[in-house]
Formats: sequence, C-alpha cells, structure tokens
Amino acid sequence: MSWRDNIIKIEPYVAGEQPNKTDFIKLNANENPYPPSPRVKEAVARFDTEHLKKYPSANAVPLVKAIAKREGLKPENVFAGNGTDDVLSLAFRAFFNSEKPIIFPDITYSFNTVWCDILKIPYETVPVDENFNISAEDYARENGGVVIANPNAPTSIGRDLTFIREILDCNRDSVVIIDEAYVDFGGTTAVPLLKEYDNLLITRTFSKSRSLAGMRLGWAMGSAELVAALYATKDSMNSYPVDSIAQSAGVASIEDEDYFQCTLKRVIATRERLTKELRAMGFSLPDSQTNFVFAAHPKYYAKEIFEYLKTKDIYVRWFNKPRIDNYLRITIGSDEETDALIAALKEFVKP
Amino acid sequence: MSWRDNIIKIEPYVAGEQPNKTDFIKLNANENPYPPSPRVKEAVARFDTEHLKKYPSANAVPLVKAIAKREGLKPENVFAGNGTDDVLSLAFRAFFNSEKPIIFPDITYSFNTVWCDILKIPYETVPVDENFNISAEDYARENGGVVIANPNAPTSIGRDLTFIREILDCNRDSVVIIDEAYVDFGGTTAVPLLKEYDNLLITRTFSKSRSLAGMRLGWAMGSAELVAALYATKDSMNSYPVDSIAQSAGVASIEDEDYFQCTLKRVIATRERLTKELRAMGFSLPDSQTNFVFAAHPKYYAKEIFEYLKTKDIYVRWFNKPRIDNYLRITIGSDEETDALIAALKEFVKP
Repeated sequence: MSWRDNIIKIEPYVAGEQPNKTDFIKLNANENPYPPSPRVKEAVARFDTEHLKKYPSANAVPLVKAIAKREGLKPENVFAGNGTDDVLSLAFRAFFNSEKPIIFPDITYSFNTVWCDILKIPYETVPVDENFNISAEDYARENGGVVIANPNAPTSIGRDLTFIREILDCNRDSVVIIDEAYVDFGGTTAVPLLKEYDNLLITRTFSKSRSLAGMRLGWAMGSAELVAALYATKDSMNSYPVDSIAQSAGVASIEDEDYFQCTLKRVIATRERLTKELRAMGFSLPDSQTNFVFAAHPKYYAKEIFEYLKTKDIYVRWFNKPRIDNYLRITIGSDEETDALIAALKEFVKP
Repeated sequence: MSWRDNIIKIEPYVAGEQPNKTDFIKLNANENPYPPSPRVKEAVARFDTEHLKKYPSANAVPLVKAIAKREGLKPENVFAGNGTDDVLSLAFRAFFNSEKPIIFPDITYSFNTVWCDILKIPYETVPVDENFNISAEDYARENGGVVIANPNAPTSIGRDLTFIREILDCNRDSVVIIDEAYVDFGGTTAVPLLKEYDNLLITRTFSKSRSLAGMRLGWAMGSAELVAALYATKDSMNSYPVDSIAQSAGVASIEDEDYFQCTLKRVIATRERLTKELRAMGFSLPDSQTNFVFAAHPKYYAKEIFEYLKTKDIYVRWFNKPRIDNYLRITIGSDEETDALIAALKEFVKP
C-alpha cells in the first residue's frame, strides 16, 4: 500500500468559469451587477485592521444578531458561515446521519450530490416534471432528509408557502432544508413556518441579492436545537469560519434595507425586460423568481449558443447534464450587459 | 424515528475563552500582541468594495503565488484556506482514508482527535516522554498517516530537521503532515525536505506570527499531487473559502518581510524575558520555540494560578486533560501585558 491509495477519490463541484481576462461580460455565476451597499464600503474603510490580531467572534455574534433582528427571530435561531456552501455542507453533516436516503429534485443545485458523495450520505433524486415543477406529493415517502431550493436553480421557478407546508407536513420525522439563495428576487420565504416546524432549516446567502459573493457570507435559520447542532459541527471542523471584516461588512449590508430593496427592484426590472426579449426571439423560459433566467431555443442547441456567446466575450452557464443540456442559465446583469447580450443573441437567432 | 435521532453527536473542539468584556489581558489563544503589517492596513483601506459583487479567485491564486514566491516553491505546491483549521480538516479528509489508524502524539493540538471523530478516521495517540519529547522511532509502525506539530503545542518544544527526516524515512507509505503553526518563532521548517518527500504536507497559519487571526488565513505546502487532492476536496465542500479582502490582506502580509521579522524579534525577546522571570519564581518550563510558554509550578496547582489570574483580568490557558493539567499555556503578549502578568504572578507565588 502506498500513501496514494489512501487519497480521496471524488468528483468535485464545478463552479462557473472564471476566465483569465478582464474584458468580458460574466453572466455565468448569478453575481449581482450592482455594488454592495455604500455602508459596506464605509464599514470596510473604517475597519481598524489592528483588530485582526485577535480571533473573530467565533459564532459571528454581531452578524447573527443583525440577521435575527431583520428576520424577526432570536439570535439562537440564526447560524452564520463562510458562504452558504459552508453552511449547507455543515447542515448535511449535522442532520443527515440516517441510513435512509435523503431526497431532493433531480434538477436542482448540483452541489447536493457532491456533498452526499464526500460525506457518504445516501441519496435519491426525485424527478421534476416536464415543466421542471416539483410535486410536493413525491416527497411523501420514507427518507433521511429533504433538500429543496426555493426558488429552484437552475430552473428559476419559485413556489408558494402552501407547497412548502405540504413538504413539511409529510416530513415530520426528517430535517427539511429549504435553500432560499434566490428568494429575495421575488420568491416566497418559509420564515413564517419556523414557528410551527422545528425540523425546518432555511439557508440564505449574501452572494446574490446582497452583492457580496466576494465576501463569503451565508446563514441558516431554524429551531434553537438545529442551530445548536450546526454550531457543534462547525466547532468540530473550523471554529472561526467568518473573519472580522466579513462580520462587519455583513452587519452593514443587513442594516441597509433601502439600498437592498432598491437593487432588487433594478435586477427584477432588467429580468422582466430580458424575459420579454428572449421570448420575442423564440426562446422558451419559465417566469423567473431569481436573478437569472433558464432559457431554451427550439431551433438552436444550447451548447451552440453558449459557444457563440463566448466568442462575443459573453459568458453564460451551460450544464452538460441530462434533461437540461439544451438550456442556458443566464444571470441578470446590468442594463448595459443585458443590452449587449440581447444584441448578440439577435444576431445569432435569425427569425 | 424522529429527525432528532439523525442529528450528529459530537464533542467539539473548545477554543480559548472570549470573555464578554473588553478590559482584560488575553494570553489564552496565542494571538500576536502587535498589529499586522501596515501594508495590510493599506490593502484593506484601498480595497475597492465594488469587487465584492463577484466571487473571489476560487483557488486564491494571487495569495498562493505570493506564498510560493516567498517559500521558493511553485504555485502548484501551495494551497490556501480559511485558516489552518480549514486546511487541516481538508487534509485529514483528503489523505487519511486508510483503515489503519493515523498516529500523532498524545500531547499535541487537541483538534486532531476532534477531526478524527467527525471524519470517522481511526487514530491512535503515541505518548510523548516525561519531558514532553516526541521520539521519532515511536512512529516507525504501520499507520494510515502521521501528524506532527513542530514546534509542538501546547508544549512549545521544537525539533530539528534530523528528527523530521527520521519520521519521514520510516513513513514512506503514509502522508506525513507537519503542522508549522508556530515555526516562525524560532523553529525549524521542513520546507527543504519537500523536494525529497512527495508524501510530506506542511501547514502554516497567518494567525500567530502574522497577527491575522481575525482574517482567517492558512496554507499548506506539498507535492503537486497532494495539493491537487486538497483542491479537489475543497471543491467538494466549499468552492471559495478565502474572501477577496482576505486574499489582498494575505498578499500584503507576505510581501512585508521586514515588518514580519521585526515583530518576530520583539515577541521572541519578550518570551526570553518572561522565561527567565518565570524560572526565577520557581516555574519549570521547556525552552519555547513558539509565541507561548508551557509552565508548571512545583508548589501551586495550575488551575489555582489560572483562576487567580482571571480575578486579575489576565486570561491564560489551562487544559483539564491528563498529563498536562498542572501546566499553564501562556501566550507572549506585549511588554506591558507581560509586566502585568509577572507582577500578578509575583504577588501569588511567594518565595
């Protein structure tokens, strides 16, 4: 036996390309086209770097308090981490220790299967229907846990509280994770259900609606019992996941509700405009409740459009995966970026 | 079965206390008393927060390049993470997949056993001798991996290259991790051995010698093969562990060698003074190659001194653990903090 035999064998998650150049339009990672709140800028500028000599608040207490206040919860119901992926991987580890498979849609955030593989969690995927809709009754079955992204990615489709309640009512014995990474762009949050269901965990990110992908901040909300298990799991991996500057930046972002709402409105307006333009060009796409659209064209292969757009220095996301390999996931950029995208597509998609 | 039955049961790592007050002397987490380099201050102040809307470099490329340059390595030999604990937990996951137990000293960084528990890695501890010395020949046995902190914590004892080479020579079939968290304070680095041993992984942190505990930065160095496995493991848990500001701050720190050396000299000078003073008071302690000392007094229980110092608003570290429960681990603070510590101890330890 060599040491090589004991190295892990895994198929990692593949994020959107980060091309090694600067002059291109990046619509492949669902980043926000607008800067974070000016209060974030102030918070970073006035941060006294001498404080960096000390460890940060291990449980990110100032940030957790700010989030709890905004969401109408107690601090004991909130857990903050180094991006939602950090929070979700800890949640998978903390809650999915059954021998029964956890279940989630076949078309959803593709990191789910990667976490299951590395954490040795058995899983089964439940097919969405031909319109990419999730049927709540499909989740009324024995399982070791449930994970639903709402709105779902990469489909952009959001569901209402009745749907989430149906999922929860048939899963009283499982932890149900609702990943609300995109909820701010027009989705319906499950936060009101936290009072009723102590097995519900909701995750959120600062990367999309709060323009802080580069700051690595995400959080979870749930019963004090679930949140305590997340802290214990965190303290068994990496005690201080959120650095001091990120904690200050996060508080500043959360406290600027006006800027947040204003940015959301701009992204949503651009999305509605892009949706109309794409449909006029013959694309079919569901109504999006996110900061991206999920579009297919009856006459052109998605991969073909994807490659063409790259030649125009426009990067969108194409998944080489069954059922969705003829769709493009296109992030809502600025109005200028969207104009450039529309112009390029109009050139390609001849009527 | 309830969802509660599937929640993980774990005993997390316990870090040094973070008392909920500001006016006290904190010598319990091996933090640096001096601020980070002025270049870090500049890098944070001039960071354009608009960049935060985009994801950071997933593999922290600018930081990895700066580290590689300083250490005389290629970028492919360096991996950066969200603090050394993040890096070590990924390394345990990536490299320790044997059914044979990994081995490490019974007295060492106490996170090792926590990672083994949560990652289900079998382990055995190897007793250090009565003077807390590690014997290389004890590591000439079948194992699934080896982890040595050099200098070791909490003992403060460092060993030379001959010792590390002995460990490596009897472990050609295991990955050997040398944790060099404290090496800058007078220890001997194993970096020159990287050319010879492709199963050697060395870890470092920005938290101690670089005064950046609050920024969460650590790194690993090893063969391209080991480093590639770390990236794959990272990409299976959390793709972007190091935020954009932390990457800039890390580069600034690495590039200011003069300030770094100057701070190290000050800490070492204070350590030598404290060592003399403690010995004069009757404490016994090994010569430290770290930014802390590990001291016992023949006439007083360590816990008693620990509790007494708290009443004087001085926090040091006491471990309620076999073999070391009569020792205190005391961080080297500023000269003023050290004066206060010495004065308080002199009052307590009557001749």
